[in-house]
Amino acid sequence: MATGNSQRIKVGIVGGTGYTGVELLRILAQHPNAELTAITSRKEDGLAVADMFPNLRGHVTLAFSTPEKAPLTGCDVVFFATPHGVAMNQAKELLAANVRLIDLAADFRLQDVAVFEKWYKVAHECPDILAESAYGLVELNRKAIAKARVVGNPGCYPTTILLGLAPLLGGAPLIDTSDIISDSKSGVSGAGRKAEVGSLFSEASDNFKAYGVAGHRHHPEIKAQLDQMAGTDVGLTFVPHLVPMVRGMLSTIYVKILPEARGVDFQALFETRYANEPFVDVMPFGSLPETRSVRAANTVRIALQRPGNGDRLIILVVQDNLVKGAAGQAVQNMNLMFGLPETTGLNQVAILP
Amino acid sequence: MATGNSQRIKVGIVGGTGYTGVELLRILAQHPNAELTAITSRKEDGLAVADMFPNLRGHVTLAFSTPEKAPLTGCDVVFFATPHGVAMNQAKELLAANVRLIDLAADFRLQDVAVFEKWYKVAHECPDILAESAYGLVELNRKAIAKARVVGNPGCYPTTILLGLAPLLGGAPLIDTSDIISDSKSGVSGAGRKAEVGSLFSEASDNFKAYGVAGHRHHPEIKAQLDQMAGTDVGLTFVPHLVPMVRGMLSTIYVKILPEARGVDFQALFETRYANEPFVDVMPFGSLPETRSVRAANTVRIALQRPGNGDRLIILVVQDNLVKGAAGQAVQNMNLMFGLPETTGLNQVAILP
Amino acid sequence: MATGNSQRIKVGIVGGTGYTGVELLRILAQHPNAELTAITSRKEDGLAVADMFPNLRGHVTLAFSTPEKAPLTGCDVVFFATPHGVAMNQAKELLAANVRLIDLAADFRLQDVAVFEKWYKVAHECPDILAESAYGLVELNRKAIAKARVVGNPGCYPTTILLGLAPLLGGAPLIDTSDIISDSKSGVSGAGRKAEVGSLFSEASDNFKAYGVAGHRHHPEIKAQLDQMAGTDVGLTFVPHLVPMVRGMLSTIYVKILPEARGVDFQALFETRYANEPFVDVMPFGSLPETRSVRAANTVRIALQRPGNGDRLIILVVQDNLVKGAAGQAVQNMNLMFGLPETTGLNQVAILP
Amino acid sequence: MATGNSQRIKVGIVGGTGYTGVELLRILAQHPNAELTAITSRKEDGLAVADMFPNLRGHVTLAFSTPEKAPLTGCDVVFFATPHGVAMNQAKELLAANVRLIDLAADFRLQDVAVFEKWYKVAHECPDILAESAYGLVELNRKAIAKARVVGNPGCYPTTILLGLAPLLGGAPLIDTSDIISDSKSGVSGAGRKAEVGSLFSEASDNFKAYGVAGHRHHPEIKAQLDQMAGTDVGLTFVPHLVPMVRGMLSTIYVKILPEARGVDFQALFETRYANEPFVDVMPFGSLPETRSVRAANTVRIALQRPGNGDRLIILVVQDNLVKGAAGQAVQNMNLMFGLPETTGLNQVAILP
Repeated sequence: MATGNSQRIKVGIVGGTGYTGVELLRILAQHPNAELTAITSRKEDGLAVADMFPNLRGHVTLAFSTPEKAPLTGCDVVFFATPHGVAMNQAKELLAANVRLIDLAADFRLQDVAVFEKWYKVAHECPDILAESAYGLVELNRKAIAKARVVGNPGCYPTTILLGLAPLLGGAPLIDTSDIISDSKSGVSGAGRKAEVGSLFSEASDNFKAYGVAGHRHHPEIKAQLDQMAGTDVGLTFVPHLVPMVRGMLSTIYVKILPEARGVDFQALFETRYANEPFVDVMPFGSLPETRSVRAANTVRIALQRPGNGDRLIILVVQDNLVKGAAGQAVQNMNLMFGLPETTGLNQVAILP
Repeated sequence: MATGNSQRIKVGIVGGTGYTGVELLRILAQHPNAELTAITSRKEDGLAVADMFPNLRGHVTLAFSTPEKAPLTGCDVVFFATPHGVAMNQAKELLAANVRLIDLAADFRLQDVAVFEKWYKVAHECPDILAESAYGLVELNRKAIAKARVVGNPGCYPTTILLGLAPLLGGAPLIDTSDIISDSKSGVSGAGRKAEVGSLFSEASDNFKAYGVAGHRHHPEIKAQLDQMAGTDVGLTFVPHLVPMVRGMLSTIYVKILPEARGVDFQALFETRYANEPFVDVMPFGSLPETRSVRAANTVRIALQRPGNGDRLIILVVQDNLVKGAAGQAVQNMNLMFGLPETTGLNQVAILP
Repeated sequence: MATGNSQRIKVGIVGGTGYTGVELLRILAQHPNAELTAITSRKEDGLAVADMFPNLRGHVTLAFSTPEKAPLTGCDVVFFATPHGVAMNQAKELLAANVRLIDLAADFRLQDVAVFEKWYKVAHECPDILAESAYGLVELNRKAIAKARVVGNPGCYPTTILLGLAPLLGGAPLIDTSDIISDSKSGVSGAGRKAEVGSLFSEASDNFKAYGVAGHRHHPEIKAQLDQMAGTDVGLTFVPHLVPMVRGMLSTIYVKILPEARGVDFQALFETRYANEPFVDVMPFGSLPETRSVRAANTVRIALQRPGNGDRLIILVVQDNLVKGAAGQAVQNMNLMFGLPETTGLNQVAILP
Repeated sequence: MATGNSQRIKVGIVGGTGYTGVELLRILAQHPNAELTAITSRKEDGLAVADMFPNLRGHVTLAFSTPEKAPLTGCDVVFFATPHGVAMNQAKELLAANVRLIDLAADFRLQDVAVFEKWYKVAHECPDILAESAYGLVELNRKAIAKARVVGNPGCYPTTILLGLAPLLGGAPLIDTSDIISDSKSGVSGAGRKAEVGSLFSEASDNFKAYGVAGHRHHPEIKAQLDQMAGTDVGLTFVPHLVPMVRGMLSTIYVKILPEARGVDFQALFETRYANEPFVDVMPFGSLPETRSVRAANTVRIALQRPGNGDRLIILVVQDNLVKGAAGQAVQNMNLMFGLPETTGLNQVAILP
């Protein structure tokens, strides 16, 4: 009888010249069950991936190839590390070939097609596949993911905010759901590897600013999930900021405790909720999580603060935006979809300093 | 008749081996009316300040000397760029010698002695002088500063938060003063030049975290000023964060607009309030101020955001924590106290990139 | 009789959307004799420069305009903050209108047209104007610049290396000119404000590398000047490196002292050579200059090292690549060309930290 | 028969509150054969290491204890991640208990006691043990290390320079050994986790400088090894610089090719020399290695440059100073000393970006 350990999963990657791409390659190259089979890039056809990303020298021998040449339909799973709009165009063909899909872009994050089209300014190509797809935040949606053929890997900001709020929603009313604030901060790698002036070293270094305050694409994604968990229309103020660091994300979430919940032991609530989650670390009450404590690891660390023991609860959540916020979570989804232990290939210790 | 331009002000600096010290030296060395007369450091007696801070080579010839040797009582004004607790010990003697004082530490920031002693764990040495001192946030307290003998230069965080909220307080009720949040972010120079592990490059770089959530000494300072402006007991949640950059501070302030104030033109309100303030720049509605836009300048830039035109008003405020948040503001106070145009020596353009 | 102080110089800038452009604007906005008259950008026609560079808000009211609309021929001097190849196309027309030119790109740096065309892959448009132009390294070429109509502002690397070596060349033989090494390091702003992957924050931050080892365009420029100073064919090895900082450049120059020069007092030689240069600071022997000691200032600091008092002399040279290495030096040239004191508008103290 | 894979090695760490300590812990926590048994710190007795280094939460349960309580004599190997002078004091006792030692400080790096005492200003406590110890640069000294009881783990700079030069020394004369230059650059973590002003974020960030030019402790270490390899008195100029990054080191090594060696294929020479070395990557000729390509990995990458095909050979060498330059190399030594495959626990892919 084959155990999980001997299973071979043929993996394809569409895109892969960006930061989620190289991070997928780094993780999968060290994954005991993954067999890197194909990676596509129309522009870089023929280039060894290790020539573009020298950290992979000696670990990955694969070269980019055009989609036409890449044997994607022969894979067991294909990751899309592309801009939005690509996965939905190839989903049908791949599903027909019995290939599972994990999209790291937004095509399968929003179940409401109208909301998708409003925010992404493009018609959805396969609403039927969207309808059967699963939202890939494992800790919140494990059952659906395990049997899904298509997974929409969550955005980086949503991962922190949803994991930070989940224990507070869906049970007895604990917080004022009409007025939740997430003041979120991300490292620059979240903007991707596109050549844009705003992401230049000399623009982003030694600088700090908010952005996307008037409207960020992760807002509807977060709200849709919060609404569903809370069973009501949640009021969310979400302000992302850009931090002069490569990796890392911290959300400072402000909620107001309802009068009837003032006596609740929120620390116990969080610890219980995540007791069996290998990738969620509820730190001691009053801790101050640092982004570097999860650098290059698939871990989210959460700490609670309640200044003056008042009715403001502050939830601090950190992750590596490229790992738990992107590529690591995608591999966690793969593990789940293929019946492997969820932590397979994802147990590396974070890099500090 | 002497004009402001020919006035000579003999300036002493106590302390001066830290970042507010070198910044004072940089600004004063280029100030047309300031005459750097003495700088004290017991530890560095005899060392040329330009040997410690090589940016001053060719501009400052002064050497550190012990307090005993330094002719502080012969100065017109003495800046204290020291830890808290130093200025209050020397205030009486200097005032007796007709010297004015500007304390960049906390000794004259909190009028309530009990609050001071609770947060700074030391008895106040001169409550009578504290009582006559002025809180040195020029834009809010110009008249008192102009005639003060002692000025308590504000903390860096308070400067951003108070200037960000002032137009909303003290008139007709506009916002819910029981529930104000400031999610603030500071560059590492705010921690000073003390040799501490937490401020090491390898600790602070490529990292982001909150700190002081359970209680930060700037909280009572902010609250005291807000209470006074609002004429009521203001509810403030204040969460500071550490940004991997040298200089710069951004406060993201969240307030709730009262139902009766939904029609107010907040942009006009801010523009009017600060129309004649040379160091407060109200940017166009919806702007996204960057900390580097004020690097090394005495300017605060403010922008308003109102997502979805709802009842959340977000005020974004940036400053250079070492300039408007410390040394620049101190010199602005000096200008005011000595009848000089407020902008004298403070009109430098910010350094970008 | 008008003194230098009341002279008005009408200044035009071609280009100006890059880092040398904004730095020119910062310096010129604070220059007592400069009158910013026109700034061109075909792409940004109509945009206020302060909307692109918010540090200029309140200091510069000028807007970009197309070259057609900009009154460049009515200026006294035009700076070209453009890629190479632009200034040489407009030089003839401007000279005809009695406008002086300072090119911050490479069109007037190399007197040998063949060398220019080999390295810049474009034919030189005006060899006659090139022939009359002056190489704008003031400390080495003051007389020619003072009377020039066209100045080729030096490259950033050449400025450090030429100032570091000048005192050793042209007199009695002191060093082995056949074997000079400059191991140079630059901040990322040296690559400009172009959107290129290699200059992204996530590529350049927390990273260090050499580049252009096989051939860098500043190599022939440095060599041409060294050859001329030395009166011989100098052997130069030049290896530039990229430092994860915004501004700043350091060249570590290795030369071998000739046996007959072992007794020379090199420190005295350098101090004498630069005694009257306001922008060259020869630090005490054995000093370790830091790039931040000249941040945002027009100063070059030089220090000599001679390990074990042997025959290796090491010259350490730092500058701000955007100031003495570009915009500041250009304004220094302008001052000289218009008979102003050379330091006019250039005396700001460096920003530290 | 036990295979390497099932072997258990009881590991102790003396010190461990610094960066080499936490890096040892990170690597050993993921090492299949290492059993973390004791970690000492007099100051932090009782503190869980994961409370000091939160990246270890969930991976390391060990707490610091005083040397008295820590069962070091029951270990198979003890790493000293201490300042110099500690290991040599405990070596005798541990050897008597049949414990092997790997010192990450300098006590066993210099065979010449007089040189050691000159540079480290302390008498050597155990010259006899020093005499039997092995210099732990595996690629150069594999046989001696394999049978050593005590290993002096090399300094970070020496590792890059020795691996960069080894293929050129010891055979037919290829380079002028009287005149070798290494212009080396290190990230700030190389200075350790000591609270010192020079290592503060606000001192080291956005800054670049040389240091230790007049004499650095790694100089005699490098020279001793070079002398031995070359069989002659090597002339070495070594200039270290400080780069504003956390991890990473690059040495730019300049050597002069002897006339008789101008036809040598240096690329082939290096490739052959390191063909079977799992941790030395000879990149294609003319490559430009980046420090981030080895971040958190035990790899050294080397590239050759020969500008203009002349007689200057430039060797570029990068490593992570905390891994191959410290903790990783120490574990590589441990593997070798205990008969494990050298790569055990050291095969992680570098983190990029």
